[in-house]
Amino acid sequence: MPAPIDFYFDFSSPYGYLASRRIDALAAAHGRKVTWRPILLGVAFKATGGAPLPSIPIKGAYAMRDFLRSARFHGIPYHQPTTFPVSTISAVRAFYWLQDRDPAKAVELARTLYNAYFTEDVDISKPENVAQIAGKLGVKAEDLAAALGDAAVKERTKQEVDAAVTKGVFGSPYVIVDGEPFWGMDRLDQVERWLAKGPF
Amino acid sequence: MPAPIDFYFDFSSPYGYLASRRIDALAAAHGRKVTWRPILLGVAFKATGGAPLPSIPIKGAYAMRDFLRSARFHGIPYHQPTTFPVSTISAVRAFYWLQDRDPAKAVELARTLYNAYFTEDVDISKPENVAQIAGKLGVKAEDLAAALGDAAVKERTKQEVDAAVTKGVFGSPYVIVDGEPFWGMDRLDQVERWLAKGPF
Repeated sequence: MPAPIDFYFDFSSPYGYLASRRIDALAAAHGRKVTWRPILLGVAFKATGGAPLPSIPIKGAYAMRDFLRSARFHGIPYHQPTTFPVSTISAVRAFYWLQDRDPAKAVELARTLYNAYFTEDVDISKPENVAQIAGKLGVKAEDLAAALGDAAVKERTKQEVDAAVTKGVFGSPYVIVDGEPFWGMDRLDQVERWLAKGPF
Repeated sequence: MPAPIDFYFDFSSPYGYLASRRIDALAAAHGRKVTWRPILLGVAFKATGGAPLPSIPIKGAYAMRDFLRSARFHGIPYHQPTTFPVSTISAVRAFYWLQDRDPAKAVELARTLYNAYFTEDVDISKPENVAQIAGKLGVKAEDLAAALGDAAVKERTKQEVDAAVTKGVFGSPYVIVDGEPFWGMDRLDQVERWLAKGPF
């Protein structure tokens, strides 16, 4: 079986969320698995001088319009979060902590966090909201609370994010297939071509 | 007949060039004309704090790879210009000067300038190269040289570019259909949906 594809994303990224609703089916249609890799865009922005889209004059207003229109275009439920963007450090730490215990459940947590933020307007920057969401998946609130304050979990998260930046990940979503990088929800068509027919 | 669509682009923009090879056929398939509107991205960048892609760390290297791959994906000839990006003020002035005399020929000039830069590696920042390209379309070199130094042509160009920035144009390509803005070669799929079925 060919190697899994790497799916990098920020939990506060609208285009990352849209891609999260498509990436597994896209990969599966071509016999591939997906490795979900949440990152912290703020760390990547330090390397590129980037900034959150809504903070950019003119382009930010366009982006807010494009998030909603792109969701409709792709037929994906989307509600613009009231608080946006937000820090997702707790969400990312929860993900990597859970990944070491139950990788499939970590992906389920990622999906549920994304849906909570982008369809139910839950502020996933709050550790208690992350805990509540994880709780629905059977994770004990006290275990997660302990994990979020654990130095080893913090270090693991830092290493994952730094490794992504070292690989050149500067945006969300960012997909790497067979070493080839694709940035953006709007590159999934090229990802599909690559998966179907190989390098082009 | 429905209103023409506005196609804003910078002559030094790879994605603008790629869109230029598709936009007329796309519009014509839905009974629309295209108004070609060259701009100067550098002026727009002053409003948004933007910068040419190749100058951005990490993202720039990705972009250089994506230009070529996107051209192959869309089946469009592309050669990365040796000098890139370049100032396109002469090209834009030549376009608007010619538009007042022969609008169809101005669009032909735009196409020919784009092809010269992105397939034949002609440095279109040089007025003499713009003149030579225009010459192939029957424009007299001395008329064009006079136009490029003419205060009225300079003012006309400035007004066109400023009007674009006022409309919110911050990138290339940037397409406006029925008042709805679409940024990027990778939004032509949404432009097509809009043209085919109206607002979504």
